[in-house]
Amino acid sequence: MKNLTLAADSASTLSLTGSDRTIVIAVGLVAVIALVISFVLRLGVLAAGKGSPKMQEISAAVQEGAAAYLGRQFKTLSVFVVIVFLLLFVLPADSTGERIGRSVFFLIGAGFSAAIGYTGMWLATRANVRVAAAANGEGRERAMQIAFRTGGSVGLATTGLGLLGAAVVVLSYVDQAPKVLEGFGFGAAMLAMFMRVGGGIFTKAADVGADLVGKVEQGIPEDDPRNAATIADNVGDNVGDCAGMAADLFESYAVTLVASLILGSAAFGAKGLVFPLIVPAIGVLTAIIGVYITRARATESGLATINRSFYISAAISAVLCAVAALVYLPKNFNDLGVAAVAGLPGNPAVIAIVAVIIGIVLAVVILWLTGYFTDTNTKPTKDVAKSSLTGAATVILAGISVGFESAVYTALVIAAAVYGAFLLSGSLTVALFMIALAGCGLLTTVGVIVAMDTFGPISDNAQGVAEMSGEVSEEGAKILTDLDAVGNTTKAITKGIAIATAVLAATALFGSYSNAIDTAVAKAGSVAVNGLRTFTNTVVSPGTLVGMLIGAAVVFMFSGLAVNAVSRAAGAVVREVRRQFREIPGIMEGTNKPEYGKVVDIVTRDSLRELATPGLLAVFAPIAVGFGLGVGPLAGYLAGTIATGTLMAVFLANSGGSWDNAKKLVEDGIYGGKGSPAHEATVIGDTVGDPFKDTAGPAINPLIKVMNLVSVLIAPAIVSLTIGDSSNTALRIAIAIVAVVVIAGAILIAKRRASVLQD
Amino acid sequence: MKNLTLAADSASTLSLTGSDRTIVIAVGLVAVIALVISFVLRLGVLAAGKGSPKMQEISAAVQEGAAAYLGRQFKTLSVFVVIVFLLLFVLPADSTGERIGRSVFFLIGAGFSAAIGYTGMWLATRANVRVAAAANGEGRERAMQIAFRTGGSVGLATTGLGLLGAAVVVLSYVDQAPKVLEGFGFGAAMLAMFMRVGGGIFTKAADVGADLVGKVEQGIPEDDPRNAATIADNVGDNVGDCAGMAADLFESYAVTLVASLILGSAAFGAKGLVFPLIVPAIGVLTAIIGVYITRARATESGLATINRSFYISAAISAVLCAVAALVYLPKNFNDLGVAAVAGLPGNPAVIAIVAVIIGIVLAVVILWLTGYFTDTNTKPTKDVAKSSLTGAATVILAGISVGFESAVYTALVIAAAVYGAFLLSGSLTVALFMIALAGCGLLTTVGVIVAMDTFGPISDNAQGVAEMSGEVSEEGAKILTDLDAVGNTTKAITKGIAIATAVLAATALFGSYSNAIDTAVAKAGSVAVNGLRTFTNTVVSPGTLVGMLIGAAVVFMFSGLAVNAVSRAAGAVVREVRRQFREIPGIMEGTNKPEYGKVVDIVTRDSLRELATPGLLAVFAPIAVGFGLGVGPLAGYLAGTIATGTLMAVFLANSGGSWDNAKKLVEDGIYGGKGSPAHEATVIGDTVGDPFKDTAGPAINPLIKVMNLVSVLIAPAIVSLTIGDSSNTALRIAIAIVAVVVIAGAILIAKRRASVLQD
Repeated sequence: MKNLTLAADSASTLSLTGSDRTIVIAVGLVAVIALVISFVLRLGVLAAGKGSPKMQEISAAVQEGAAAYLGRQFKTLSVFVVIVFLLLFVLPADSTGERIGRSVFFLIGAGFSAAIGYTGMWLATRANVRVAAAANGEGRERAMQIAFRTGGSVGLATTGLGLLGAAVVVLSYVDQAPKVLEGFGFGAAMLAMFMRVGGGIFTKAADVGADLVGKVEQGIPEDDPRNAATIADNVGDNVGDCAGMAADLFESYAVTLVASLILGSAAFGAKGLVFPLIVPAIGVLTAIIGVYITRARATESGLATINRSFYISAAISAVLCAVAALVYLPKNFNDLGVAAVAGLPGNPAVIAIVAVIIGIVLAVVILWLTGYFTDTNTKPTKDVAKSSLTGAATVILAGISVGFESAVYTALVIAAAVYGAFLLSGSLTVALFMIALAGCGLLTTVGVIVAMDTFGPISDNAQGVAEMSGEVSEEGAKILTDLDAVGNTTKAITKGIAIATAVLAATALFGSYSNAIDTAVAKAGSVAVNGLRTFTNTVVSPGTLVGMLIGAAVVFMFSGLAVNAVSRAAGAVVREVRRQFREIPGIMEGTNKPEYGKVVDIVTRDSLRELATPGLLAVFAPIAVGFGLGVGPLAGYLAGTIATGTLMAVFLANSGGSWDNAKKLVEDGIYGGKGSPAHEATVIGDTVGDPFKDTAGPAINPLIKVMNLVSVLIAPAIVSLTIGDSSNTALRIAIAIVAVVVIAGAILIAKRRASVLQD
Repeated sequence: MKNLTLAADSASTLSLTGSDRTIVIAVGLVAVIALVISFVLRLGVLAAGKGSPKMQEISAAVQEGAAAYLGRQFKTLSVFVVIVFLLLFVLPADSTGERIGRSVFFLIGAGFSAAIGYTGMWLATRANVRVAAAANGEGRERAMQIAFRTGGSVGLATTGLGLLGAAVVVLSYVDQAPKVLEGFGFGAAMLAMFMRVGGGIFTKAADVGADLVGKVEQGIPEDDPRNAATIADNVGDNVGDCAGMAADLFESYAVTLVASLILGSAAFGAKGLVFPLIVPAIGVLTAIIGVYITRARATESGLATINRSFYISAAISAVLCAVAALVYLPKNFNDLGVAAVAGLPGNPAVIAIVAVIIGIVLAVVILWLTGYFTDTNTKPTKDVAKSSLTGAATVILAGISVGFESAVYTALVIAAAVYGAFLLSGSLTVALFMIALAGCGLLTTVGVIVAMDTFGPISDNAQGVAEMSGEVSEEGAKILTDLDAVGNTTKAITKGIAIATAVLAATALFGSYSNAIDTAVAKAGSVAVNGLRTFTNTVVSPGTLVGMLIGAAVVFMFSGLAVNAVSRAAGAVVREVRRQFREIPGIMEGTNKPEYGKVVDIVTRDSLRELATPGLLAVFAPIAVGFGLGVGPLAGYLAGTIATGTLMAVFLANSGGSWDNAKKLVEDGIYGGKGSPAHEATVIGDTVGDPFKDTAGPAINPLIKVMNLVSVLIAPAIVSLTIGDSSNTALRIAIAIVAVVVIAGAILIAKRRASVLQD
């Protein structure tokens, strides 16, 4: 049970039968269908009424700002991508084909991630004005339809591209597919992490900056056109919540598939390469159903409508996956034809069904749990709102408590899912595959989840466009406010699901990490360890514990850097908006327009600059630990980041969500309403929560996966520098030192920037 | 390297030579000397002038309140102690003698912990008025001397009792000493945890409650006699910072010694039982020097004076420990006569010296690091203060960033120390002992550290007595304000040192956890595992990862519970103080006195009620995980609590410290001074930081050790219920379910209380 026999070992015996090949091609076709329907939905959205010229003008400014930001971001990131592409090429590989495939699919993964982010944002910035116009003229049902179908288009593109990529790799590489997929997943995760961090800094710097000068100093409402930062704020919603989150979920999709395929081939042979493609393909089909059945009813809230679609498509997925498992998988482990699992007790089809359903149920529970802790109608948020009666300090403390508590329950639910899947088989190889399959179950919901998430920034933006144009009727405005509140909750739910995928994928990837080490050790031909106790990866080893401590520390560091980056960039926005109020006459009276573009430029420049440090930390920290301390401590390091990262991510997301909705509750009239001391206290809470929930929190999810994949990729190199003939302690330590210097340098540069900007 | 041969295995061969016995007796004598000098210092303090009748009256009220609280606390805790005593008696043991010894020394450990807390508090509540009187009449030098000698008396009592207990156990039990010491350490840690949590809730509920009504609502200064919560606030300083911290450091002392003696006997045989007693005995001697050489100079700050004493005594300790190692330990592993380490390369004496010095250097580095992040003169605190210009939200964000960052560096320094000690030997048995010896090195500083820590509440209280009496001259008040600021920093440093001892002790205890399992497995005679994969304790196992996730979650839960408890108890204080202002005429005019005792009663009742839930969580969570999931996941659980707990503890302590001192900076006049918007913003930060730094943060340190010791104690029982003839899955699961029910029940009760109190 201790030694895994994973893909690399059984590589030579793995091949697809004719019918397996047909199924994979069918999966590819499903992916293409998803992309086609995504395009059809897109055309439908674009065909909707575009509203008044003034609304179009505002929307155009947002489109322009968002496109400019993403364009510059991709230019910046391309440098990173090229460097990592080269490094990846240098790392040990089993064959030249694998080496080339891994690097090329790294590019493809990164490209897909970027493309999803860009398309999602492109459409969202065009949907905003259409939703505003529909709310104004055609009513709530139509407005909601446009918003949700935009989300649906992005959701289907996300799942379609992920599935297509995986199917193509499996078809073309078969036995080497797992290794090549590591590159694909890493590319997707790395780009998503950068987009998440950069977009998160952008959106919150603009938001916090706009609020500090507008709401606090000048006493003008949110989205007031006199505030020079409003366009930047709206751009931020798109590049952060929309482009960043779409890329993030694409990455979750890709990495979970990668883990499933690696572990599936080891446990179930060729059938294990195919089944993890069937499950999300079913998810794509049910997502299409989910998007089309979403119709607002006059008698229910928007959230109830969306939740119904989610539950229905999840239920259909569960049934179809069960059918697929019963038809496709054998009833007996012997029939799989895999030596490693032959003779195991149990029915492979049945345990696979249970695993997939665990994943789907996990999604449902997290949806409910996050709703409970952040929704405006539930006790925790009401308690936070009530604490505003005793001032801002108690609001902060109450929100932190809610965040801690919800993080605990979410972590326990995720832990239960992992453990439940783990208990499905006495064989570690099979158990790890079951955990990955639970991840695939979770994936079946991603189409609808992306649709729900994209709904958030679109409705937020629609409200912004309506407010700034001043041309939307009172009834239209009411509709948009309602949709915005729904969007707040769906955004929080998405974050919960995203972190769950991270834990499942990372736990499963741990198996492939372990396998990479075993394979490398076997290849080195000698187990003489030079200079370092590399293989003490029991939990009770001090080396492992030191790794865990460093892993937990990196999560804290990353969160602190992200929060700091927002504070710095927001400071620059505050100064610019103040300058414009001071130097451009007539802004306050509405006779002169502020220079929106300048603020967009400043936030663009600052967030791209700020993104480097946390990004470098994510990539280089595992390199430093792995080469410096060895693969045992690196395993501890990964475990530390997963455990602490999960708690921290949910804590940050939910305390932020709870502060946001507590503010909304007070604004709705209790405890004195807008302008009361209670309101002021909740505004402080909301401002603290902004970088928590939209910058640091959600970026931890791709962070965990990037670090896991970096570790899987470098493990063979560490082993070969540690043991056997090619061991080279000096080189190994030199690499670690370079990594430490890169991290330390990046942190120092960010710190120096702080002192320059604060003056 | 994988299998440890620890005490239990080599038990029969372990005996003390005549000279070893003499040395242990000498160590016991040093402990007695420490206690005698502690008593002499105490007499000296009590002989100092007691100030005016009014000052004495105030001090008497504080004494009375503190004694009443501790009395009721001990009554409450005695129930817990009796229950745990019985449970401990039921747990498997190698012999009846061991069983009885373990349970009896559990009581002794708990009793010593309580005694230290009580004595420390008793003296501190009498020193406060004497320090105030000295500042008023005899000047700064004498005031500081009284405060520091009070601390010195408590510090010497702490180290004296710890050392005495360990020496007595070693002398009377020799081969069974490690097992018996587990009981001693557990008793000390459990009681310290409860005192830390209860005292922490008391002190901050009173402080926050007093501030919310006094400073915020009524606009009267801190320690104003018109505020009904002032006496409770001063009582809180004593029961939290003084009694709680003294018990906590005693517990650190005891547990580190326990770990060292367990691991020392395995690695170095009898010499390994004796050397870990010699090192702290040297620390006791140098602490005496440190206390007596502390003399304030007119030209330097109080902090510089105290730091100098610390550095000098640390340096002397390092030299004397080196000499002791060279004289007492052999130059060759063969000469130790221990089969497990015979033939190892290296010089035992030299690596022991390096380990001890690593510990001493660690203390020095943490002293410096904590000072850097929380002191008023350094950049981080200045930055937090500056952020008050843009309001409370930015103050909170800046403080959180400082907390995150300082936690990262502190964790990395601790990790480096652990890893450095770990690298000292290629044998895991020896390496673990070296980590424990580094802990002993850290212990040499505890005498002075306790003195520094106790200095904090005394000077805080002295200022309170002076303020309330209104009889202290302006110059005297200035002296007391300075001493109070010094106390703030020394308190923060103490917390850093305490968490470092937790990590070192817990890492070392991990070895004895592993050994307990191996021994139990060997005894069970069969390795057939029933129903559960118990021994998958590699890091990469999903079971371990699930354990880690739960461990990290428990740290978050515990922190959230502690913060919540303070909020609830503070709410009760607010209501009572408001009621008194409303119902008792003449309070505001000073013609009538508020009912101080009522507030003390309320806080006493509430904090004792609140202490149960986090306490039960700490004791029962490892039971639930261990019996429910097995010893592998329990190992992961412990690792998760250590990694996350370290970061969380330092984060909470230092962000709180930084907010506190940022407030002081603004009060000193920058950014508008007292009453300015900037000041209001920093007051909000300080209020948020109060439960962070004085309740949740410091309680994590004993929490980690309690959970580790519970795990070590239950490991054999888990193993015997899992494998071999006495395996019993139903009983095992039943125990886990009971533990979960206890935890869930305690949490639900705490939650219900919340809703009752909030109305």
